[in-house]
Amino acid sequence: MTWLAVVPDNGFGLANLPFGSFSPAGGGRRLGVAIGDDILDLAGVAGAAGSDLVELVAAPVLNPLLTAGHQAWTAARTAIREWLTDPDAATMVGPHLHPRSSATMHLPFEVGDYVDFYASEHHAANVGRIFRPGAEPLTPNWRHMPIGYHGRAGSIVVSGTDIRRPRGQRQLHPDAGPELGPSVKLDIEAEIGFVVGGSSQVGEPVPVQEFAHRVFGAFILNDWSARDIQAWEYVPLGPFLGKSFATSISPWVVPLEALQAARISPPPRHPEPLDYLRDPDDRGLDIELAVHLNGYCVSRPPFREMYWTAAQQLAHLTVNGAPARPADIYASGTVSGPEPDSWGSLLELTHDGRAPVALPDGTRRGYLADGDVVSISAWAPATDGTRLSFGRVDGRIVPAR
Amino acid sequence: MTWLAVVPDNGFGLANLPFGSFSPAGGGRRLGVAIGDDILDLAGVAGAAGSDLVELVAAPVLNPLLTAGHQAWTAARTAIREWLTDPDAATMVGPHLHPRSSATMHLPFEVGDYVDFYASEHHAANVGRIFRPGAEPLTPNWRHMPIGYHGRAGSIVVSGTDIRRPRGQRQLHPDAGPELGPSVKLDIEAEIGFVVGGSSQVGEPVPVQEFAHRVFGAFILNDWSARDIQAWEYVPLGPFLGKSFATSISPWVVPLEALQAARISPPPRHPEPLDYLRDPDDRGLDIELAVHLNGYCVSRPPFREMYWTAAQQLAHLTVNGAPARPADIYASGTVSGPEPDSWGSLLELTHDGRAPVALPDGTRRGYLADGDVVSISAWAPATDGTRLSFGRVDGRIVPAR
Repeated sequence: MTWLAVVPDNGFGLANLPFGSFSPAGGGRRLGVAIGDDILDLAGVAGAAGSDLVELVAAPVLNPLLTAGHQAWTAARTAIREWLTDPDAATMVGPHLHPRSSATMHLPFEVGDYVDFYASEHHAANVGRIFRPGAEPLTPNWRHMPIGYHGRAGSIVVSGTDIRRPRGQRQLHPDAGPELGPSVKLDIEAEIGFVVGGSSQVGEPVPVQEFAHRVFGAFILNDWSARDIQAWEYVPLGPFLGKSFATSISPWVVPLEALQAARISPPPRHPEPLDYLRDPDDRGLDIELAVHLNGYCVSRPPFREMYWTAAQQLAHLTVNGAPARPADIYASGTVSGPEPDSWGSLLELTHDGRAPVALPDGTRRGYLADGDVVSISAWAPATDGTRLSFGRVDGRIVPAR
Repeated sequence: MTWLAVVPDNGFGLANLPFGSFSPAGGGRRLGVAIGDDILDLAGVAGAAGSDLVELVAAPVLNPLLTAGHQAWTAARTAIREWLTDPDAATMVGPHLHPRSSATMHLPFEVGDYVDFYASEHHAANVGRIFRPGAEPLTPNWRHMPIGYHGRAGSIVVSGTDIRRPRGQRQLHPDAGPELGPSVKLDIEAEIGFVVGGSSQVGEPVPVQEFAHRVFGAFILNDWSARDIQAWEYVPLGPFLGKSFATSISPWVVPLEALQAARISPPPRHPEPLDYLRDPDDRGLDIELAVHLNGYCVSRPPFREMYWTAAQQLAHLTVNGAPARPADIYASGTVSGPEPDSWGSLLELTHDGRAPVALPDGTRRGYLADGDVVSISAWAPATDGTRLSFGRVDGRIVPAR
């Protein structure tokens, strides 16, 4: 137990301790760890405690700690837990706690490269049916490898940032030429992201077994997507401007160490993956997402259904010798389960807008309207028997220029 | 004229003055400008001259200068030119010159995002015929927009870095499943890259007319490509591991200001591009590339043939509100002309390996063999009537792990 009055089941107990970058009311930007309704100022408490950790948390972003590697991550978590549980430390720690409710959150790291995967079989099949009607929903390679592509790191924004409706080329009528204008099919993709740390030899692949040594933690990611721009541009080189206008992430990075109780077996894979993608351990994660549109829950995507695990994704990403640098991130792809109420995009939920979702306030949505607010939250089992929260990633649509 | 003894037509005269990051023999890494057979140490000379420029060139990478914007670029170029031409400055400048031949070159900037375009009609049509036989070579969108995708910024290396043959999934026989192994179709793509600087409002597109204010300079880029890995993975989300193992760039960034005499009209475009891609000025560039394989010239790709200009590419890249940050880079895509001896990839030059190139030493190459050395050079008309050199991007293939 901590000496702090943590509200039971608020999801930010001692078993979670996610990292983020915040500014307390009236104060400058710094690193912190969420505990209950508060944020612990890491540089402040490490300085007061005379801890070596202070060097790694002096910057207002996680990059130095990510670079330091997994032993440093464990040491940091152990120290933070001790500060929060040792009653004798309360006087030292107290001044470095700030209320979460009045803090401003920032991006937790300076992003290196950003890769987005496509790892839900349900999502890939649903999208295949919509974008390539009449063809096999899954491409021939899909069950052999985690398909992915590089996204725009510079477009990654923290939860709460307004999302401007993008303009772009789209073909409004199948037989007409393209026009430039605001996207009329603005969508979300509910995903889980992972951030890399530590280092390996240049050109040395990261085996699936090394996952816990090379991935610091996880967060929620909303891969905003302009389906009309995407559909017109994506053959032959993949998604580009249909995605690159904005990608939102939640401000709290849940350490991988906090997700031990969430580990589950992923769905069976057929055919058996190639050796470099085989994983004798179970590295699926039982994370429950919830997608809210204007306050109403429209889907509950289950991360446990993902065909390819984050460990397999990192092994694939690096098998060709590509470097995985500290603060490189990658995301799961849209999380969709087998049932319609578990699909992670409006493309799927509304059959490309043809079957709008009816919200309890009487409004209907095919795709997003200006002013709409999307909020994605996520929870997972914690090691103390409670559930831990990933917090939320929120975004409001503002009109195109 | 400079007071230095610049070898006539060595391509690094006063009309060029490209920027790079170098270590002189026995010295630390720093920024420099190439002049003749020498490199001028920028922080050293700016410090000796008491110039304000010193703040922007104190780091060993171009990022601060890129961030400072186009007025700072012009001021820097003016100051450097004065130092190199004023006979009274010779005593001050002399100690800050280092021979190019004994310097070690580094990446000139810390890369932000990296986008690779596909802007040669000849290349796109050649590839379409090979990858999608029987279909229209150009996809329906190709003449309406510069098609591109994001590549892996962390894999960008400076000229001279050995290139390890990548391993990856590829389908060796059309009816068999994939296998993991070293690429058997390792290729090059001869391209010109551009580096962005300055800043604009977040979400504000960069019009084609703003090109010269937002692009600092150009360099040569070799987009190493594993065609077998690429062919198996690229549907539906585009190239990924077939490209992400390595991308080499030349060490010298030729300022856009030095390319004024290289401006030409690009080929006629049909249909007329949409308004945001129309450019009343001529922003094609007459850059001649040469591809050498093991010392023998195998192709002379003409950049003047590119269908989409770099100005159009930047306008397209940002039309959806995506930010263009300092040290974001983008590349032209393979430069291929209409004639076979002007194609910029072995995929095209050898018809996917079926018609190997015969080298004068009696060897033949379908794709690259271990030990092969590829060198791409480039030249353009300079404002003083000479030709300026981009230098070279070199790489040697080392065997797969």
